[in-house]
Amino acid sequence: MSITGARVAIIGSGTIGLSFAALHLKHTASLITIYDTRPDLEDYVHRTLPTYVADHSDLERVRIATSLQDAVETASIVQEAGPENVAFKSSLWPEVEQHCRPDALLWSSTSGIPASAQSMRMKTPSRLLVVHPYNPPHLMPLLEVVPGKQLDEDVIARTLSYWEALGRKPVVVRKECTGFVANRLAFALLREAIHIVDEGVVSVEELDRVVETSMGPRWSVWGPFKSYHAGGGKGGLQAFFDKIGGTVQDCWSDVGQVNRGGGWEEQVFRQCEDAYGEVDVAQRDRITKKILAVIEKEKAQLP
Amino acid sequence: MSITGARVAIIGSGTIGLSFAALHLKHTASLITIYDTRPDLEDYVHRTLPTYVADHSDLERVRIATSLQDAVETASIVQEAGPENVAFKSSLWPEVEQHCRPDALLWSSTSGIPASAQSMRMKTPSRLLVVHPYNPPHLMPLLEVVPGKQLDEDVIARTLSYWEALGRKPVVVRKECTGFVANRLAFALLREAIHIVDEGVVSVEELDRVVETSMGPRWSVWGPFKSYHAGGGKGGLQAFFDKIGGTVQDCWSDVGQVNRGGGWEEQVFRQCEDAYGEVDVAQRDRITKKILAVIEKEKAQLP
Repeated sequence: MSITGARVAIIGSGTIGLSFAALHLKHTASLITIYDTRPDLEDYVHRTLPTYVADHSDLERVRIATSLQDAVETASIVQEAGPENVAFKSSLWPEVEQHCRPDALLWSSTSGIPASAQSMRMKTPSRLLVVHPYNPPHLMPLLEVVPGKQLDEDVIARTLSYWEALGRKPVVVRKECTGFVANRLAFALLREAIHIVDEGVVSVEELDRVVETSMGPRWSVWGPFKSYHAGGGKGGLQAFFDKIGGTVQDCWSDVGQVNRGGGWEEQVFRQCEDAYGEVDVAQRDRITKKILAVIEKEKAQLP
Repeated sequence: MSITGARVAIIGSGTIGLSFAALHLKHTASLITIYDTRPDLEDYVHRTLPTYVADHSDLERVRIATSLQDAVETASIVQEAGPENVAFKSSLWPEVEQHCRPDALLWSSTSGIPASAQSMRMKTPSRLLVVHPYNPPHLMPLLEVVPGKQLDEDVIARTLSYWEALGRKPVVVRKECTGFVANRLAFALLREAIHIVDEGVVSVEELDRVVETSMGPRWSVWGPFKSYHAGGGKGGLQAFFDKIGGTVQDCWSDVGQVNRGGGWEEQVFRQCEDAYGEVDVAQRDRITKKILAVIEKEKAQLP
């Protein structure tokens, strides 16, 4: 796909939709249409989108669509970032399919509703892919690309090559599963974090400090498997488990299994509020950008 | 404590012991004694320690001790990094206590044996603290400081101020628990990672890429609580759970509970070996140093 020639329709003007719009604008010469049913759409986009976009001349390539058909009919990519409910999404896609080009790529930004559930009423369900970002998409490199039960390898290949050309790091998730991959992993750690705070071992703030000064930087360089594979020396992950598998299993056997409504909420929510109050996301994003730039530069130099 | 005046005795000349020795040498003007029972100790240290130390003139402050008494008798800090077994550690500390200064700080680098279990035969068990690093200690800022059941607040305070003066990030773990905090969190995520690979959802290499391009950079800036607190907007972590607590709980209810010997090993070990073979830890450390430098610089500028 020629990136110069892409025309992207964004359906939904929330944080994720506008962040994706900014990402396309920054890395391509695409024309972008934005569609949403909110009555003040034009005002809202003109007020909000500039906060995501560094070069404001890029905004000249954005157009507010007057209808779904108007948004999608010339698009080569239709990217949905609407409400997280099956009824909305499963009625949207047949309508998109009716008006869009036959070669248009159709992507949902959902964090939880599988393509299979969204595409049930489509003529060609295999056209639809979940493309799940890690928030905010205009900064974070990960995109989880999750096809439904019916696969179209050409659709997957064109999706990957688009994102790779934009310097993103798409990963194909080969089986639809609850939460896909990133959230499953993060929430498993969060659950243990809540358990540890609930038990009074450390505070919310101390736990965050632990992660920021250990796993965070480590896993920015090498993910958990490569890290522990290195930890085993020449024998790799197997040697790692031979050496300290006992401690690993002790932690697994003792893992906390907190649930929603399990009584931990009051204390943990209050500690977060006391420690952090209203947080400055711009500060997070500024530091994140610099870290990502270092990683990109260093990894580009690797043999 | 005057850092210029510290005298550090390192017991154990493995990776952790020598990495700690390098850390003390770099940030203080301390004299270091190293003691181990290996017969080739002097040769071994002269050969190995320079690989951890950037400024080789620092090595002039290192002396090989001829006995445990010789190592510890003038030390203000005794840092143990010996074999991970209770018998060794619990017989070491009474002997250290007999020969060391009454004000010396006594630290164990253990990743799993609580201070309470190590200090049983000591006259003053409250002197002993676990000071558990995140490998390698000469780079990673985290130190988990874990007192035993008997506390000496002065010992804890002096330990924290020493490490803080060295630019480290010590966190006091207030209850002895299996694996302390960092490993419990990391192993909870690793368990889910193994489950996901075992289910064929993504490969070992893809899973690592997911983490490297999402949670790694994110949690380098803000730990999980602050991140999800921000994810909830003005309502904080509570609003985050109001909004997507359903998805979080779905992931928790579906979490994998693999165990050692559970049949996943062959596939996961082989994928690691095929993907990574023998890894270059120096490459990891080079990139890690640059990421940590960015974080330190950026966080120092925060209001």
